[in-house]
Amino acid sequence: MQKDLKKWMGNALLEAEKSFLINEVPIGAVVVHNNQVIGRAHNLIEISQNPTFHAEMLAIQEACNNLHSWRLNDCDMYVTIEPCLMCAGAICSSRINHLYYGAPNRKFGAIESLYHVLDNQQLNHHVSVKGGILDDQASNLMKAFFKRARRRK
Amino acid sequence: MQKDLKKWMGNALLEAEKSFLINEVPIGAVVVHNNQVIGRAHNLIEISQNPTFHAEMLAIQEACNNLHSWRLNDCDMYVTIEPCLMCAGAICSSRINHLYYGAPNRKFGAIESLYHVLDNQQLNHHVSVKGGILDDQASNLMKAFFKRARRRK
Repeated sequence: MQKDLKKWMGNALLEAEKSFLINEVPIGAVVVHNNQVIGRAHNLIEISQNPTFHAEMLAIQEACNNLHSWRLNDCDMYVTIEPCLMCAGAICSSRINHLYYGAPNRKFGAIESLYHVLDNQQLNHHVSVKGGILDDQASNLMKAFFKRARRRK
Repeated sequence: MQKDLKKWMGNALLEAEKSFLINEVPIGAVVVHNNQVIGRAHNLIEISQNPTFHAEMLAIQEACNNLHSWRLNDCDMYVTIEPCLMCAGAICSSRINHLYYGAPNRKFGAIESLYHVLDNQQLNHHVSVKGGILDDQASNLMKAFFKRARRRK
């Protein structure tokens, strides 16, 4: 099991590296269904000038296209950084089964940092959550990104 | 001022009616900039099988396309029903200035019902919020939708 978590998170990290290469905040996500990636994406906010183009949002939409359904009940999400409010909401609305993430996001994270939104017992869908998967690699990529951005300024 | 709020919310209600006509949960939204609607949309989840196609999300993306920017600092949003978690997050991330909404959403609302997410002082952007604009019309449309749905079942 532990090996699989790392394998899928490795896929999400490859996505995050794609963002890094094009100067986007390096966050990547994959949606896994029946042991297969059915959605993969990386953050594309600046290039698209679309504030909703977070990795999680794009990966969810690709997965829904592939399943021809907005319900992802039997799917898991792997994302390199703790999701923000918008993405946590989308993860819950799309009925993702398990959410695995890498490093916390102290500024924007809605799972354990700024909020604990998925803990609300009144929600009509409950996502099981586990953080800390390959968190060092995820946070090192973020640190390298912001270091480079500061240097360029 | 009060008259303008009703005018723009009237636009959002027209959008909500479009959802009603195609059997989608009737919620509509507009984004207003310099006294002009630059984004208008209605809920399209079922027809698109895309869980992110809430009225607010689509209106924000249209507004960003029109302004060629993911930042909507000088824009206001009018939405007929209290936004959910995902949409509240998108409204904050896109830096909408004022959020006006109609009726509360006791099951999914993230502003005053299930959560009060926009009250968090640690957020890097603060949205001013006012609910209760043409709330009767917004909630009557929702009630009519669910009554019809139950009858059809």
